[in-house]
Amino acid sequence: MAIRTPEQYLASLKDGRVVYHEGEKVEDVTRFPHLRSCAEISAMDYVLAQDKRYQKLLIEHDKKGEPYHFVFKPPTTVEDIIRRRDVIQLTARTCYGMPGGTKFTGIDALHSITAVTRRMDKKLGTSYAPRVEAFREECKKEDAAVAVAMTDVKGDRSLRPSKQKPHRDYYVRIVDERKDGIVVRGAKVHISWSPLANEIIVLPCRAMREDDKEYAVSFAVKPNANGLTIIAPAAEAIDEGNEFEYPLNAHMYAADSLVVFDNVFIPMERVFLKGEWEFAGDMTYMFTNFHRASADAYKVTENEILVGTAALMAEYNGLDKDHVIRDKLSWLVFYTEASDALGKAACQNCVSDPDSGLVYPDRTMSNCAKFFFADNYHQAIKLLQDITGGIGATIPSTKDYLNPVTRPYLDRYLGGKEGIATENRIRAIKLVKDLSSYWIQFNTLHGEGSLSAQRLSLYAVGDFERYKAAAKRIAGIKDGWEHHIFSNLPKFPMWRWND
Amino acid sequence: MAIRTPEQYLASLKDGRVVYHEGEKVEDVTRFPHLRSCAEISAMDYVLAQDKRYQKLLIEHDKKGEPYHFVFKPPTTVEDIIRRRDVIQLTARTCYGMPGGTKFTGIDALHSITAVTRRMDKKLGTSYAPRVEAFREECKKEDAAVAVAMTDVKGDRSLRPSKQKPHRDYYVRIVDERKDGIVVRGAKVHISWSPLANEIIVLPCRAMREDDKEYAVSFAVKPNANGLTIIAPAAEAIDEGNEFEYPLNAHMYAADSLVVFDNVFIPMERVFLKGEWEFAGDMTYMFTNFHRASADAYKVTENEILVGTAALMAEYNGLDKDHVIRDKLSWLVFYTEASDALGKAACQNCVSDPDSGLVYPDRTMSNCAKFFFADNYHQAIKLLQDITGGIGATIPSTKDYLNPVTRPYLDRYLGGKEGIATENRIRAIKLVKDLSSYWIQFNTLHGEGSLSAQRLSLYAVGDFERYKAAAKRIAGIKDGWEHHIFSNLPKFPMWRWND
Amino acid sequence: MAIRTPEQYLASLKDGRVVYHEGEKVEDVTRFPHLRSCAEISAMDYVLAQDKRYQKLLIEHDKKGEPYHFVFKPPTTVEDIIRRRDVIQLTARTCYGMPGGTKFTGIDALHSITAVTRRMDKKLGTSYAPRVEAFREECKKEDAAVAVAMTDVKGDRSLRPSKQKPHRDYYVRIVDERKDGIVVRGAKVHISWSPLANEIIVLPCRAMREDDKEYAVSFAVKPNANGLTIIAPAAEAIDEGNEFEYPLNAHMYAADSLVVFDNVFIPMERVFLKGEWEFAGDMTYMFTNFHRASADAYKVTENEILVGTAALMAEYNGLDKDHVIRDKLSWLVFYTEASDALGKAACQNCVSDPDSGLVYPDRTMSNCAKFFFADNYHQAIKLLQDITGGIGATIPSTKDYLNPVTRPYLDRYLGGKEGIATENRIRAIKLVKDLSSYWIQFNTLHGEGSLSAQRLSLYAVGDFERYKAAAKRIAGIKDGWEHHIFSNLPKFPMWRWND
Amino acid sequence: MAIRTPEQYLASLKDGRVVYHEGEKVEDVTRFPHLRSCAEISAMDYVLAQDKRYQKLLIEHDKKGEPYHFVFKPPTTVEDIIRRRDVIQLTARTCYGMPGGTKFTGIDALHSITAVTRRMDKKLGTSYAPRVEAFREECKKEDAAVAVAMTDVKGDRSLRPSKQKPHRDYYVRIVDERKDGIVVRGAKVHISWSPLANEIIVLPCRAMREDDKEYAVSFAVKPNANGLTIIAPAAEAIDEGNEFEYPLNAHMYAADSLVVFDNVFIPMERVFLKGEWEFAGDMTYMFTNFHRASADAYKVTENEILVGTAALMAEYNGLDKDHVIRDKLSWLVFYTEASDALGKAACQNCVSDPDSGLVYPDRTMSNCAKFFFADNYHQAIKLLQDITGGIGATIPSTKDYLNPVTRPYLDRYLGGKEGIATENRIRAIKLVKDLSSYWIQFNTLHGEGSLSAQRLSLYAVGDFERYKAAAKRIAGIKDGWEHHIFSNLPKFPMWRWND
Repeated sequence: MAIRTPEQYLASLKDGRVVYHEGEKVEDVTRFPHLRSCAEISAMDYVLAQDKRYQKLLIEHDKKGEPYHFVFKPPTTVEDIIRRRDVIQLTARTCYGMPGGTKFTGIDALHSITAVTRRMDKKLGTSYAPRVEAFREECKKEDAAVAVAMTDVKGDRSLRPSKQKPHRDYYVRIVDERKDGIVVRGAKVHISWSPLANEIIVLPCRAMREDDKEYAVSFAVKPNANGLTIIAPAAEAIDEGNEFEYPLNAHMYAADSLVVFDNVFIPMERVFLKGEWEFAGDMTYMFTNFHRASADAYKVTENEILVGTAALMAEYNGLDKDHVIRDKLSWLVFYTEASDALGKAACQNCVSDPDSGLVYPDRTMSNCAKFFFADNYHQAIKLLQDITGGIGATIPSTKDYLNPVTRPYLDRYLGGKEGIATENRIRAIKLVKDLSSYWIQFNTLHGEGSLSAQRLSLYAVGDFERYKAAAKRIAGIKDGWEHHIFSNLPKFPMWRWND
Repeated sequence: MAIRTPEQYLASLKDGRVVYHEGEKVEDVTRFPHLRSCAEISAMDYVLAQDKRYQKLLIEHDKKGEPYHFVFKPPTTVEDIIRRRDVIQLTARTCYGMPGGTKFTGIDALHSITAVTRRMDKKLGTSYAPRVEAFREECKKEDAAVAVAMTDVKGDRSLRPSKQKPHRDYYVRIVDERKDGIVVRGAKVHISWSPLANEIIVLPCRAMREDDKEYAVSFAVKPNANGLTIIAPAAEAIDEGNEFEYPLNAHMYAADSLVVFDNVFIPMERVFLKGEWEFAGDMTYMFTNFHRASADAYKVTENEILVGTAALMAEYNGLDKDHVIRDKLSWLVFYTEASDALGKAACQNCVSDPDSGLVYPDRTMSNCAKFFFADNYHQAIKLLQDITGGIGATIPSTKDYLNPVTRPYLDRYLGGKEGIATENRIRAIKLVKDLSSYWIQFNTLHGEGSLSAQRLSLYAVGDFERYKAAAKRIAGIKDGWEHHIFSNLPKFPMWRWND
Repeated sequence: MAIRTPEQYLASLKDGRVVYHEGEKVEDVTRFPHLRSCAEISAMDYVLAQDKRYQKLLIEHDKKGEPYHFVFKPPTTVEDIIRRRDVIQLTARTCYGMPGGTKFTGIDALHSITAVTRRMDKKLGTSYAPRVEAFREECKKEDAAVAVAMTDVKGDRSLRPSKQKPHRDYYVRIVDERKDGIVVRGAKVHISWSPLANEIIVLPCRAMREDDKEYAVSFAVKPNANGLTIIAPAAEAIDEGNEFEYPLNAHMYAADSLVVFDNVFIPMERVFLKGEWEFAGDMTYMFTNFHRASADAYKVTENEILVGTAALMAEYNGLDKDHVIRDKLSWLVFYTEASDALGKAACQNCVSDPDSGLVYPDRTMSNCAKFFFADNYHQAIKLLQDITGGIGATIPSTKDYLNPVTRPYLDRYLGGKEGIATENRIRAIKLVKDLSSYWIQFNTLHGEGSLSAQRLSLYAVGDFERYKAAAKRIAGIKDGWEHHIFSNLPKFPMWRWND
Repeated sequence: MAIRTPEQYLASLKDGRVVYHEGEKVEDVTRFPHLRSCAEISAMDYVLAQDKRYQKLLIEHDKKGEPYHFVFKPPTTVEDIIRRRDVIQLTARTCYGMPGGTKFTGIDALHSITAVTRRMDKKLGTSYAPRVEAFREECKKEDAAVAVAMTDVKGDRSLRPSKQKPHRDYYVRIVDERKDGIVVRGAKVHISWSPLANEIIVLPCRAMREDDKEYAVSFAVKPNANGLTIIAPAAEAIDEGNEFEYPLNAHMYAADSLVVFDNVFIPMERVFLKGEWEFAGDMTYMFTNFHRASADAYKVTENEILVGTAALMAEYNGLDKDHVIRDKLSWLVFYTEASDALGKAACQNCVSDPDSGLVYPDRTMSNCAKFFFADNYHQAIKLLQDITGGIGATIPSTKDYLNPVTRPYLDRYLGGKEGIATENRIRAIKLVKDLSSYWIQFNTLHGEGSLSAQRLSLYAVGDFERYKAAAKRIAGIKDGWEHHIFSNLPKFPMWRWND
């Protein structure tokens, strides 16, 4: 059963997990409002894998010839990285910009623990890597739906984990260690797909110091573990399933939940980091190495929708020939295509991790891609809203459009360019409204690392030695610098004419 | 009864008007979902006028000593203009940033028809101005709630009113003229407060050419007129009245409706423009002269909320001492205070209209204020969301917070800086979410004129003769120009040392 | 002789001062390259005061009826502040955007020491204020040209004055105190007009702590004092006086010099602060209160030139009707007029200093003005260069235009729109080039306080109590806050319909 | 002699060409001020080709084993395109950011005429392609220095070539046709390296209509042709060769000249387009296909210098640990690295031209790269100036630093962080000043196509069919659209839970 059907997947979720949403305890996550939408999206990973057209892309076979989902394969070549990008874009294009669910972020965490435990074992003589491989085999065998829980709730952002007050559980930590496992407490936040996963991989969310040792912890846990409670967030969609009113948000719900660990026991064979604080940050950063590029991949499909909607509105309003409007559309094309090019470049120029043999997307390029689309998103949304006009906020509801008394008025007066059905213009406007959603704005800014995190990363990847060498050579600054590029270049200028 | 109580005002709305909302015909606009919120806001104009503390500001007396609401007074001094700004800011600060309702935009339209009919009467020998004065007296006597209907539905934006296809009613027009009045057809869009008004003043929304003569029409109409249908827009608030979940949007609803004129008869004494196409644009632009400054006034109170929420989030997250966060807050202070200063300057430097004796805010300055806050709003929202963190999108719903099973987890784990009640942090996050609403974004961009309209206005008010004279004097360009400032300045440089 | 002629002023500069420029010791600052241009500009203050048309604006009379220059009068009314703005704009419009010279920044320093010494005398019982008054009388009597030296060279920007290494003179300090005066050492940088001044007022450039006591020093000094050396900066103008090639920079030179104090003795009656470290920052900030608004005043005249040049280029290139170009010009209008409005508002809403009786421009508004024009300047220059075209960089030199062999080619091929003399287009292009000068860019960013300083100021003037109160009222956050505006507003919403 | 020495190259320039600069007729372009700097840079192409370390990169061999410069090879593989990028970056890193000279832009023109003449010959049955091949062989044999003349002087930008007034020569045109050749008149502007070239390839600069037939002309010409006059622009460097004062601009001069064709005869075998107006635009756009990517390549090396100088200034000022400064540096890293990634991606994803067999960089990606670096350049310069401080404008001249009287003061007081030689800080400041040069700003904005041209290109390459399909699928807009990606995706959502 290494490739599960959507039905098998959905059935696997009825396992007694404790999930709360909108004030209720959820009996069946596959049937409960909003969570069922999340289940639909997550199930699409399994739908696609059943589709013959995509199996070459999505399915691998192990040595015994057993099929398994490609994403569980540790990437070791540029083709693996580009294939991963293709998988994400296929899924995201299918799911209205959402990159599927439990074959997405969780997989990047699996790659991270693969790489970092190999490194740790090499450097410390530990034996975490075989545990990860055993876990991977389990995932492959079950065709598991995997989530990752990284971001801690953090409390006071100016204090380190061990300095928090009034309690010390603002970052998930080991509160007890037993012979056969550990007990953890704390809570992780924004944990996408967690109510719909079979496995949750837990990672630290930052570098730690020795004082923070008890917070240096990574493990895998099933959502139905004792003491684990999932509280799902409020949804954007008011009227779930009303696709006319909310063409996008009627079924967009990633269930970015709060996952509470109330003294949860983790068996030792599922523990991948336990106090080795020097490697806590490695797990975080190796995850982001993979995950930023995953984000870059699906964001392109979201941007396609955004620029497409803007172009439709320009056309429907009769302004597709207007030079000022075209000027704005040209920027949206730039926004969409530059984020695509940057994300693609990060994959094409992926780098090898010497400790583990894995390859991951170029950090500098994937950072540029992520920062670019996040930093400019509000500009893009502004242009979309600008092109659309005030009707984006004042359009009557679908129910008025379906009411035979008011519909003729709406059909008559909300028309735009001749030849465009008014209904189509209204549908496009409703999509603009949905694209203006707060959750997309937050998700774009903060998903896969906030702007501030991006800036720190960019500073970190900046090749300042090269940059400063380039400047010093010109400025004639001689302070003993040597740089492999700049110190060996031919003399310039020659000043032949001074002779 | 020249100063009505809120009760009197609300009672006056049950007059048979035809209003639709969410697919239903509304029996009582003061009781129907969302519309009742709109009624609440609109009633605040009357609540304030009953409050002794504000009566000096809000109430005027006519020659006979009869009290009437100050806003009905045509502004003739700088003090009138500044007092109007104070009225708007008092109301907006009371109503969470919303400048009351039917004593706001409609009043700017009243001022516009006052000024332009006096000008027309002077130039054309018509006698519209006395009709406007009669209408004003009616409004004063009834302490009327007034709305304005200006923006037409427009159809194809690249075509003029008379060139529209497939029908010619994309701009409201005169379809029949009788001895005692006119018959009009068409629809106006984004008509704030219209379901809650006693009077609607209709204005053209652009300059017209002779071809567009039938579209050059202005009049006053009661919402219960035969043939008039109001279709109110969908509301942002899902769960009206749930102030914890939607601290702002639980009761924000301006009912920016589609107002359909299906062969509505307008008695001649309420008609203020009828085919004088050369003055159509004047009515539009004189309205915007007043209304832009009104917008500038209340926008400050919205921005206060925005920067205040950002400051709260910084504090609650423990980052109020962080230099990079302070850098961002400093920009939000700038955004808020510069929009205040620009709007205030427009009022302090108001100008006189020679034709009517009215004064209106400085056009250049009020345009700068409007463009400034609208063009930078998405940057402001981005900073707010950036400072808040991803929790802005993933916060569980109020119902989870009220559930005694999940509340202890939320209280424990969603805390921020020590000493701040978790509930307060959650309340602030909910406010961030509400401030990220699409309707505020659209309203800021498009309300009181779109960015494109502002750019055209800025180009129009630009004193290019002065600018070019300044440049030519320096460049030594002698093409016969004369400018009262630059042509008479002392010679510079003197070149004494060349002697 | 209370109102000097330009000749008298220029003669007064031959007093043995030690000035260096371009590697030479300058014998006569009024004749030396570049410095003579600076002298020309500075002399314009005196030229204007001789011009009957401006004497009402520029000249005051003391109780004995003796005339003196208005700027020496301590401002005590809003009219004084607005008159000062008018003086600056008249001078700046005359001098191609440069606000004259030695009646500009130095005067803001005089106002600062006036206000702060009065405050100090009140609080500490010192008697500095009478010394300032005596100094003022001297200035009035001599119609002095005054400069201010505030910015220290600063060394390592991360260290306070007393912590600098390898020497402790990175901020000007008292190295010896004698009965009749003090001895100072250190250097001040960017000291505009200092080679052309009669008096230099020295101020601290930051708040000090007790450790920094010896750096808390203010005094007046004449440029020819023993031990004082002025090193003037390189000039932008290559070919001084070539107005065709450098229509602006041919004579723009403010001589922003390094002023070195090599154990300079200052007589006690000219010392205005001597170790009272708690008041060091006050002197800095009171200076900036005045000076920011002075900057706001002249910047408008520079922006006029910029937008005017852009409009000329659009016209000469045949693109003045192009919608995209107009969109760009409209932003430049906004830039120019918003900076004007903000600066004007700061003056119109000036505030009173209770300790001294002086009034100064509103800090929040003047900060907004300064930050606005500085933060957006590069955008403005970019638009100017964008509208101009690449010819801005590739235009042949004036000498080629004057060469009869090449001139016909240039006249024929560098023409633009029909009817515009090619010479005029070339002149406009040369002006664009001059406006693209690095020194204007630096001056706009850093003059009158850097962007970073502005951001700190904006954070400091932010009324966060008001902002947070506005947010808390809506969010329902009850933490004991009271705010004079928000705590007393009527209840909102009324929720009448919930009854 | 297929690989020339620099000496051979320089000698070849003494051929009687008519060049004017700074009002003088230039006798020897290799010795004349500024032009000699240009010659130096241009000669670097030949210096590098003599350097054994680079010959593998720079030299190819023909079938007979004869060596020739790689750039003359028509690119047919991705490796060719990437190798070209490497050549440009090597040259640009050597020449302080300038991509050599006459092996740069001219080569892109050669590729363009290669591709388009093959296309024309196919479609029209003409035989231009063999002429291009003959010309290429000539270039290879002579190891020619090649320039391109594309941009016409344009006159009134709102009029097409044939509509210009008062004369019709604002675009180069054929004024006479003879049996053995054509006679052309007009002028091309911004023609880099033209005084230092052996060959100039002339291209049309826009698409033409039938009316403009006589303007559809392309050919090769030697700079010493009868009737050809070159007028070189003014240079930025005042004091050529003073590397301390102008570390960059002391020798940066690309001689972007006006090239006047005063009835120049062109032999028919050197004519590559003659009236085939439908292909005029193709030549322009195919040139830009190659040239944009060439620009992307060298711009990275300029940006390295910029961010490196900013990093040096931060360090020298003692602010390299400051969080706000690091935030700014992180953006500069992003700017530099994103432009590199975009440019590189355009090369890695190059596309094939079916008509000619040539490959050229991906248009969308290279457009994104070009627009990105040009549109953000002023922001980058602003940050550099911001980090540097006001000293960027007020630093004394080199001569003061060399004067033994003033040097000790400068050494003492212009120091920054302890341990950094003051001289190095001064050198870095001088470099900041040079980087703030107007010509770099213009060059970045307008070189290789203006921002407006980029926006038009971006609009043109935008895949609006894909974008709109993505939007329509979600919005449920059914208007008969089909798109190869979006029409075949699996159904989403499944709405399983609705069953």
